[in-house]
Amino acid sequence: MMHYNKSRVLITGGMGFIGSRLARRLVHLGAKVTIVDNLLPLHGSNPFNIQDFESAVSINICDVREQQAMNRFIKKNDFLFNLAAQTSHTGSMTDPTTDMAINVSAQLGLLESCRKWNPRIRVVYASTRQVYGKPQYLPVDENHPIQPTDINGIHKATSESYYALYHTIYGLHTCVLRLTNTYGPGMRIQDAQQCFLGLWFRLLMEQKPIPIFGDGEQRRDFNYVEDCVDALLLAGSRDKANGKVYNLGSREVISLNRLAATMVKLSGRGSYECIPFPDERKQIDIGDYYGDFSRISRELKWQPKVTLDAGLTKTMAYYQRHFRHYLMRHSVPDDRVTEL
Amino acid sequence: MMHYNKSRVLITGGMGFIGSRLARRLVHLGAKVTIVDNLLPLHGSNPFNIQDFESAVSINICDVREQQAMNRFIKKNDFLFNLAAQTSHTGSMTDPTTDMAINVSAQLGLLESCRKWNPRIRVVYASTRQVYGKPQYLPVDENHPIQPTDINGIHKATSESYYALYHTIYGLHTCVLRLTNTYGPGMRIQDAQQCFLGLWFRLLMEQKPIPIFGDGEQRRDFNYVEDCVDALLLAGSRDKANGKVYNLGSREVISLNRLAATMVKLSGRGSYECIPFPDERKQIDIGDYYGDFSRISRELKWQPKVTLDAGLTKTMAYYQRHFRHYLMRHSVPDDRVTEL
Repeated sequence: MMHYNKSRVLITGGMGFIGSRLARRLVHLGAKVTIVDNLLPLHGSNPFNIQDFESAVSINICDVREQQAMNRFIKKNDFLFNLAAQTSHTGSMTDPTTDMAINVSAQLGLLESCRKWNPRIRVVYASTRQVYGKPQYLPVDENHPIQPTDINGIHKATSESYYALYHTIYGLHTCVLRLTNTYGPGMRIQDAQQCFLGLWFRLLMEQKPIPIFGDGEQRRDFNYVEDCVDALLLAGSRDKANGKVYNLGSREVISLNRLAATMVKLSGRGSYECIPFPDERKQIDIGDYYGDFSRISRELKWQPKVTLDAGLTKTMAYYQRHFRHYLMRHSVPDDRVTEL
Repeated sequence: MMHYNKSRVLITGGMGFIGSRLARRLVHLGAKVTIVDNLLPLHGSNPFNIQDFESAVSINICDVREQQAMNRFIKKNDFLFNLAAQTSHTGSMTDPTTDMAINVSAQLGLLESCRKWNPRIRVVYASTRQVYGKPQYLPVDENHPIQPTDINGIHKATSESYYALYHTIYGLHTCVLRLTNTYGPGMRIQDAQQCFLGLWFRLLMEQKPIPIFGDGEQRRDFNYVEDCVDALLLAGSRDKANGKVYNLGSREVISLNRLAATMVKLSGRGSYECIPFPDERKQIDIGDYYGDFSRISRELKWQPKVTLDAGLTKTMAYYQRHFRHYLMRHSVPDDRVTEL
């Protein structure tokens, strides 16, 4: 991780959940961190995420769609961790144009900017397991067909193709990580825009029942945020990662029922209940998913280190202490609180 | 083809090569045809393409990127043949943003318009074999991996995903045809922006040598434009086509050397020569390509009817007569005359 000492690092979405944890870690590693964040109210940004180290980073309230501004930032940095995104699946269906602008158009703009102004910058792009769509086999490896079931998945697949192409044609140093469900301190909890697990933490705190769609036997894998940050840092610093796509994932695969039961047990409160799938959610649901992360284990020596029990316990402790900082004015109406 | 009699049909790119031949046929079938075309000088539009029947169609100089205008057209039609596109591969690399606006953003806009204003409209989208990238096996069928080698291919793959998704989620009646090299009267010949074969026709007329990149042993398949129009009409009218993707193709697979030799022989003039690949072209070249079109043969009973010899002869006769109408002021500089 010595690569990052004294290096200049740009993080888009740097006040968001994963971006802020990455920024904190990079500051500790001695990097000069520049954060770009648009603070969009329905996305993952929260200034509280960086309050304990904000004086150590350069903060810019700026949108990745602002090409001219982004050119300036790209020019000045050695690394780009590109985490800014529209992440809501149902949101991408109700407003596909905005999803396209952020997840496609802005990505092309960033790569054009790198190509023209800073072709030596190392770029890590946070993509998603959603590009696979409904798994044809499990665990899903990187060769699984790309058949997304929603607009967000289509757009993330498109931008992944850009990152690969700009590597192949122009020799840009790019790496794509396909994140699975990521959780931990700093995630959006007021609704399920970022990950359903955020909403679950909130409901647990409020002692309201956690709703599980369907029979609750859908299986998922989860990464604690610091494990995800490990992967991002490796992807940006290892030559072997250049031009590659890697799944993240976990050895612990768990049904939603068992996950909810675990959370109730660990926190000593709350409850959960199975409810029918909302219509607009069922159409794009992918069923069971868990990923094969052997490629990144083999090539970059990444392993998730934090067990689900430990990660959930830490996260609940965090929100017990900082709950009020994560209940913002802006939240989505109930009918969109439906992410899985 | 009785479906089209008295029906209202919208054709985007209707003054272009394929669009104009489709419009002519639909007029003969008794349809009320509305043409939308932006007449962009470096694209395929040419008013001469419709001069013999322009009084029989409604013509609108409009761009598919103009969402509000397109809403009005979508509302009023029973069929949409969506042929407007940026088709140049090298052009997509030099100006990826425009390619995205036309081939991605406008397509999403059109589908949103159909969903909101006319969900019963039947939509046929002209895609391209370029979405496959460099073939992993031959002939390439519809299950071949989608691994485009250029921005244009990425964008066409993205829009294909939109058409499939809007069928699956919203029940829109969409069909995607993956066209291979299409040639015939009405194609752009002043440069190779639309297809290299256009430029070859021009060079033949001008008795200049036809340049072939590499050793000329690359094999390709070709469809005469009227065969392509047959496929479009079937795709729009057959229920079985709903939600499907089909390759077009030809039983005649031919190397570029043999193709050039055939053209020289049939026309009784001209010559050809092999030259090294231009750099920017080699990077995105796909080698041999020919498609498996058995799915559309089986399901829609489509077969290409015009032999290569017959099609080339008809096309050369057409340009011998109408050459001057196809040499427009606007043409791309030599360094972009490099499409294959």
